[in-house]
Amino acid sequence: MMRQKKFYAWGYADEGLSDEEIGAWESGIARHYGLSGFDVTPPPAPEDIVLRAPRLEVPATLQPIVRSDHLTRLEHSYGKAGFDACRMFMRLVPTPPDAVAFPENEEDIVRILAWCDTIGATAIPYGGGSSVVKGIEPSEAFEKVVTISMRRMERVVEVDPVSEAARIQGGVYGPSIEDQLRDTPLTLRHYMQAYQCSTLGGWIATRSGGHFATLYTHIDDFVESLRVVTPTGSLETRRLPGSGAGPSPDRMFIGSEGILGIITEAWVRLRKKPTFRASASVRFPDFLAGAEAVRAITQAGLYPANCRLLEAREALPDVPWQNEEAVLVLAFESADHPLEAWMDRALEICRDHGGVADTGSSGDTPAHRSGAAGAWRDRFIRAPYYTEHAVARGLLATTFETAITWDRFRDFHALVMKIAAATIKDVSGREGTVTCRMTHVYPDGPCLYFTLGGILDKRIMLDQFMTILSTCTAATVEHGGTTTHHHAVGRFHRPFYDRQRPELFARALRAAKRELDPKGLMNPGVLIDP
Amino acid sequence: MMRQKKFYAWGYADEGLSDEEIGAWESGIARHYGLSGFDVTPPPAPEDIVLRAPRLEVPATLQPIVRSDHLTRLEHSYGKAGFDACRMFMRLVPTPPDAVAFPENEEDIVRILAWCDTIGATAIPYGGGSSVVKGIEPSEAFEKVVTISMRRMERVVEVDPVSEAARIQGGVYGPSIEDQLRDTPLTLRHYMQAYQCSTLGGWIATRSGGHFATLYTHIDDFVESLRVVTPTGSLETRRLPGSGAGPSPDRMFIGSEGILGIITEAWVRLRKKPTFRASASVRFPDFLAGAEAVRAITQAGLYPANCRLLEAREALPDVPWQNEEAVLVLAFESADHPLEAWMDRALEICRDHGGVADTGSSGDTPAHRSGAAGAWRDRFIRAPYYTEHAVARGLLATTFETAITWDRFRDFHALVMKIAAATIKDVSGREGTVTCRMTHVYPDGPCLYFTLGGILDKRIMLDQFMTILSTCTAATVEHGGTTTHHHAVGRFHRPFYDRQRPELFARALRAAKRELDPKGLMNPGVLIDP
Repeated sequence: MMRQKKFYAWGYADEGLSDEEIGAWESGIARHYGLSGFDVTPPPAPEDIVLRAPRLEVPATLQPIVRSDHLTRLEHSYGKAGFDACRMFMRLVPTPPDAVAFPENEEDIVRILAWCDTIGATAIPYGGGSSVVKGIEPSEAFEKVVTISMRRMERVVEVDPVSEAARIQGGVYGPSIEDQLRDTPLTLRHYMQAYQCSTLGGWIATRSGGHFATLYTHIDDFVESLRVVTPTGSLETRRLPGSGAGPSPDRMFIGSEGILGIITEAWVRLRKKPTFRASASVRFPDFLAGAEAVRAITQAGLYPANCRLLEAREALPDVPWQNEEAVLVLAFESADHPLEAWMDRALEICRDHGGVADTGSSGDTPAHRSGAAGAWRDRFIRAPYYTEHAVARGLLATTFETAITWDRFRDFHALVMKIAAATIKDVSGREGTVTCRMTHVYPDGPCLYFTLGGILDKRIMLDQFMTILSTCTAATVEHGGTTTHHHAVGRFHRPFYDRQRPELFARALRAAKRELDPKGLMNPGVLIDP
Repeated sequence: MMRQKKFYAWGYADEGLSDEEIGAWESGIARHYGLSGFDVTPPPAPEDIVLRAPRLEVPATLQPIVRSDHLTRLEHSYGKAGFDACRMFMRLVPTPPDAVAFPENEEDIVRILAWCDTIGATAIPYGGGSSVVKGIEPSEAFEKVVTISMRRMERVVEVDPVSEAARIQGGVYGPSIEDQLRDTPLTLRHYMQAYQCSTLGGWIATRSGGHFATLYTHIDDFVESLRVVTPTGSLETRRLPGSGAGPSPDRMFIGSEGILGIITEAWVRLRKKPTFRASASVRFPDFLAGAEAVRAITQAGLYPANCRLLEAREALPDVPWQNEEAVLVLAFESADHPLEAWMDRALEICRDHGGVADTGSSGDTPAHRSGAAGAWRDRFIRAPYYTEHAVARGLLATTFETAITWDRFRDFHALVMKIAAATIKDVSGREGTVTCRMTHVYPDGPCLYFTLGGILDKRIMLDQFMTILSTCTAATVEHGGTTTHHHAVGRFHRPFYDRQRPELFARALRAAKRELDPKGLMNPGVLIDP
């Protein structure tokens, strides 16, 4: 049996934060804002939410793989953004899919797409449903919607230990990939916050960014080849370590967000499970000082496995808001060699930029689970679980992310911080909190990940939420950043994406889509209009 | 004044091999085949070759930037493959362009494309003209042809020392890029055999592979953003260190071989000029033993700047044909840190695989210009200059290259070596030589670069040449490799490419082309049919 996920928020139904965790978090926020406590809306039960009746009938031949019961439709209505939880707590689900298909193989997908074509239904490919950008949410414009969950195509099909690669189906969740690789010396090592409940196919379709990497960051770099089922037919790209034969076919599907077809499997590059580790955390007087060290490290050719710059007050427990220190979580790992030379040089660079290493080890012990690095790691993994509790209390707790080159970083960072703070105050009538971290870094620039806090008005919370997030995202694009570094475009980022991408590229992509999906069945409105 | 290139072969008119070099090379070949010498066809003079009259008239307004004189048209008729030199020596140039345009800015390109549209001429974008795949050669099917040379758009426009990147025009030759970066601490460090006479725009359009890299190999990885002029209009992608917003627009143009538009400039990633170097060459009993070491090094996460495995008899002077040893040219470089830890571990891996380091240094001296590494480097740079002398003597001297994953490498290598040898014998009636090297290596597989030698019959040399090369290339694709790892598709690889790329991708690419180039002006027949 599949473990039941929580339909209205992140995670599984049988897990969550402890009362102690919630209590400590809640009283911290109350203290910050000088409040005595919060009115807590109870989470919805499935029967609290009324869904429109399915607007289609599932033919008998498809009934074994297509469901249209209330809970299944409810579970597949939204992604896992704060605004999704918000709408769930408002018991507001006006555009559920009419049915959810669970294909077990490519033939099933072909049959489901043929059915969608016949009845004029829109098809929405669905991996783990962890989208935070309305990537898998039906539009109200759709006359009928069939969501296609890849959940049953969840096998690591073939492992090639010589080339260190594996052929993996699109519907496998992160932990299951590693689990199925258990008896091999290999690992994918592509971790993101949604790792628990997101799939390889989803990662490829949305260009996910892994966190234990400064080198192979986006899933793009892992893909050797793909299989894709489109409404026009299926295709398989050739498995190669590298090629220069024309524009990369893989790259057309990587990031295509379900508008061209469904990624059913991929050959992906693995690596040996690391046996050497060195990690440290380094404190800097402030974020900008830390940023200079990060830039120097990324430009030094050292390629740490982890290089995250965090504001201490956001990342660590018991750091007062007034403390402006930043902490760099730094780690190297290898299955081949000790890492002293790498870590020593990285720490030397940190010292040259005013950093003080305060915990960790440059030896081979797994210090990444202790000290500041460990505290960050816990927060990182637990963070999505707080969303429902924030929403229940009318709290703003959300994030947005972008990337920019180093030459523009300082001004851009200052401006976006200012705009975000002003927007929260404008919209909510009260000062909120804005923090920033570097979650992914490159020699030519960082990914900046902003976290927003504040007190909203529960009666108009969704509007406030959307206004704040839209204003901040618009600012990142207006001032030269990308609308998303690793969260994809979906329906939410669409207006900002439209300002960012060249119009001629949109036209070319639209033409390619018309060729593969002439009737526009596949997730229309995401990335481009039909 | 622009330095005059040799119209019929590689290099500039004012340079070439010395008589000593030619003599030593020629007598080595004569000895190998037991011949006393060769009949040497003299190289053509421009006036030896009759070109059809231009089939168009250049309007007065375009005359300052469009030429249709004999030599200019002749120079732009062929690329620089062995079969190109062969046809030049045959005085056989039936499909020259009717005119060659030299735009100085994007407005010029727009005017030239508008003119092509008006008169129904095909436009062929042209960088350095170093194609070895008929990438810039007019088809006999074209009614009129205007080749658009980017030679006058050759500036490094802007350098960003903070992000370590530069904005560079499409028409700059390799050495000029480094020359224009002379007063900065930065370098592109993207070197290939055609470096001297090839351009950034050409590299991007053909997905060139750089040789001093095991990490950022293809030009793809260097591109931050692009400007492209298409027949429908111009576009510029956003300059970003990383993005996850939809399929990468850059990747649609990278490798597009001129069929979508002309790449006029790009922001590309640079790095600091290396100040630390460690290099060594390591001998292995044979190519397969060396291959195992190479695989281990690429999978170790050490990322050497150079990791080329060569057959000693091909790469080094005075090694007899019977000697089956292989030599690995290994180098690390950095602008940041000493490289002992890196080189020591790489050499340890080599020793574990039976390698013996015979020259070089693991310190910081530039040993890459001495010993076996230096000998290889000289041969590498000089190799293209031998083509004309081989052709003049009726000698087969050509290469083809592919890539394959490590799990299939051994069988594939053995098979392709056998097919190549058998083909040379079948076609020429005599044993030839086939050698292989790894020019680029990845954790999941190598690029294999085969070099062919043999004695052809001058009267039917071109046919023999094309048959041998086509048979070998077909074999690489038939047995799972790519038709090209870094030479692009052009008109030569087209039939093999067609077998390799998914048909649905070709359809999508064709649809994208129709959108950007509705009348099919741009280099038709390369990659896809209209």
